Amino acid sequence: MPDSWLQAPEKPSGAHSELALARQKILTKPPGSLGKLEQIAIDLAGLSRSEKPAVDPVRIVVFAGDHGVCEEGISAFPQAVTSQMMTNFTHGGAAISVMAKELGASLEVVNLGTVGAVPEASGVINEVIAPCTGNIVQKVAMTNKQAEAALISGDSAAQRATEAGSRLFIGGDMGIGNTTSAAAIACALLGHCPQQLVGPGTGLNSKGVAHKARVVEKALSRHGDSNDALSILASLGGFEIAGLTGAIMGCAARGIPVLVDGFIVSTAALIAVRQQPDVRDWLIFGHRSAEPGHNAVLEALGASPLLDLGMRLGEGSGAAVAVPLLRSACALHNYMASFADANVSEKSKE
Amino acid sequence: MPDSWLQAPEKPSGAHSELALARQKILTKPPGSLGKLEQIAIDLAGLSRSEKPAVDPVRIVVFAGDHGVCEEGISAFPQAVTSQMMTNFTHGGAAISVMAKELGASLEVVNLGTVGAVPEASGVINEVIAPCTGNIVQKVAMTNKQAEAALISGDSAAQRATEAGSRLFIGGDMGIGNTTSAAAIACALLGHCPQQLVGPGTGLNSKGVAHKARVVEKALSRHGDSNDALSILASLGGFEIAGLTGAIMGCAARGIPVLVDGFIVSTAALIAVRQQPDVRDWLIFGHRSAEPGHNAVLEALGASPLLDLGMRLGEGSGAAVAVPLLRSACALHNYMASFADANVSEKSKE
Repeated sequence: MPDSWLQAPEKPSGAHSELALARQKILTKPPGSLGKLEQIAIDLAGLSRSEKPAVDPVRIVVFAGDHGVCEEGISAFPQAVTSQMMTNFTHGGAAISVMAKELGASLEVVNLGTVGAVPEASGVINEVIAPCTGNIVQKVAMTNKQAEAALISGDSAAQRATEAGSRLFIGGDMGIGNTTSAAAIACALLGHCPQQLVGPGTGLNSKGVAHKARVVEKALSRHGDSNDALSILASLGGFEIAGLTGAIMGCAARGIPVLVDGFIVSTAALIAVRQQPDVRDWLIFGHRSAEPGHNAVLEALGASPLLDLGMRLGEGSGAAVAVPLLRSACALHNYMASFADANVSEKSKE
Repeated sequence: MPDSWLQAPEKPSGAHSELALARQKILTKPPGSLGKLEQIAIDLAGLSRSEKPAVDPVRIVVFAGDHGVCEEGISAFPQAVTSQMMTNFTHGGAAISVMAKELGASLEVVNLGTVGAVPEASGVINEVIAPCTGNIVQKVAMTNKQAEAALISGDSAAQRATEAGSRLFIGGDMGIGNTTSAAAIACALLGHCPQQLVGPGTGLNSKGVAHKARVVEKALSRHGDSNDALSILASLGGFEIAGLTGAIMGCAARGIPVLVDGFIVSTAALIAVRQQPDVRDWLIFGHRSAEPGHNAVLEALGASPLLDLGMRLGEGSGAAVAVPLLRSACALHNYMASFADANVSEKSKE
């Protein structure tokens, strides 16, 4: 297993957060009037161990994998879309590609195993484990060894991000069927029933959602009540979810803050935090997904995302859209004048 | 009065919005999965009469003015701050200055009248009406002629934005005491009682808020029950609020969409919409202020802002922080590939 699975990450720098808090109080604005942007700057100061918090360069890595549970008819899109979209990512046509370019962020696409072929020249990083996970209604999604391979792939992505000097990491997901897998994982970790956490994913109607909930129920009864993070991940998870868990833990271990996307990535983060609770310190949450299961996962993580725009696309897109808010928080913190510098009178004594 | 006060603005282009809606349906994503960003792109296509919606260049104009009602002790900051902050705006040290630079937006500061002096060389545009509005507890804030001067100043700012080729306008406010004035206007327009709409502004404690509500109550009983937009504006409004109303109406008349900031700017927008209801079509809402009166004003305007970050600073800062969301919406709309272009399979038939 990667070291990050076995060891807690370091704590962020409390000293730098305290300096940042003191600075927020002398800037030319009513105290607290920048709302969440103040806390973001304070947190990023601690995470980046710097008096001048910053998030650039930003690294985005999308992990892709196919799901055996698609046999059960749980998705509105055909399974071929997983591999087709990987080429769309690297060719610049997908939402996350457009956002990466808009943000000036580097984008990697990691293929952990899809049913459809991915052309050699596509620019995708191929770290294929198998064409597809097992159908979780009938068997485990992955062996422990396969789960370990996916965690290592994610850890390697974190290592590449470190080597590239990245100061913020966004993980994205692509995998037709993965809201079924994520809902099963979240139910197993949190003890919720499938009807509470299963949603339309890419666009099921209510009949489809009811069927999907029954599929998750079957997967959970096969899985039993093991509460171990690795066992839940291997039994119910997708390759891309395991890759994301590995990347999140690898980033925390290397001191790179992670801007968490929606339901799938948050579920991967929940596994990471279950295994190493201190990983939570390294997570900032970008967007509250319209997929209903996300709320329960966020609550378990004590997280309140910056945005709530009704997005439900995956790919890391909700986190990407939130990046400018982090940049604004840093710019305001670093470049605003103090009351003394600007000769502005302070608040009257009460 | 400016023409925009007397005439309704043109309607946005329904034809361009329809084309944009059709395009959203063929992009490589589940239908609807970009949430509010889809509607923003569709709206901006209609507003900009273009198949490629865009918001750049962005123009930000901050209107400043002092309030006679400060005599009643309704603010946590001394009145001198209004003029001091104008210099901070032009010197780059204020939140809106940092955001303008971060966004690559042009920033103008218009002084409509402050008690403190503004240095000649400050870069501020001086269109001074009087040092201060009247204390609204005792008399009207402005004569109708003064209100007209402020509306014309705002209209001129819209004209300068047009000449600069601006495709998005943000109005900002600076004026110690202006949440008192805005609360009084909102109460007069909406029939709410002051206790519902008055809040801490820049940082009053609960005793201060209760006193401020009584001050607004006195102003409303002096004002009487006139329901006319100009009468309410002149009787209760600040110079900067009237300037903002003029700018918003002037932008709508000239076909420039307005990204509306928090409580003060939304109150100015409410006056504009009361006078010319079609102005509403030209408004996009950036941020829900932590100031409690904003909710009532937003509800009256049928508006649901993009952001809710707990900001309550004014200056146009909440709208500025939302600009990247509009840019993201445009980029995704303009540059994502279609299913056909990217050879990606579409949603299965149900």
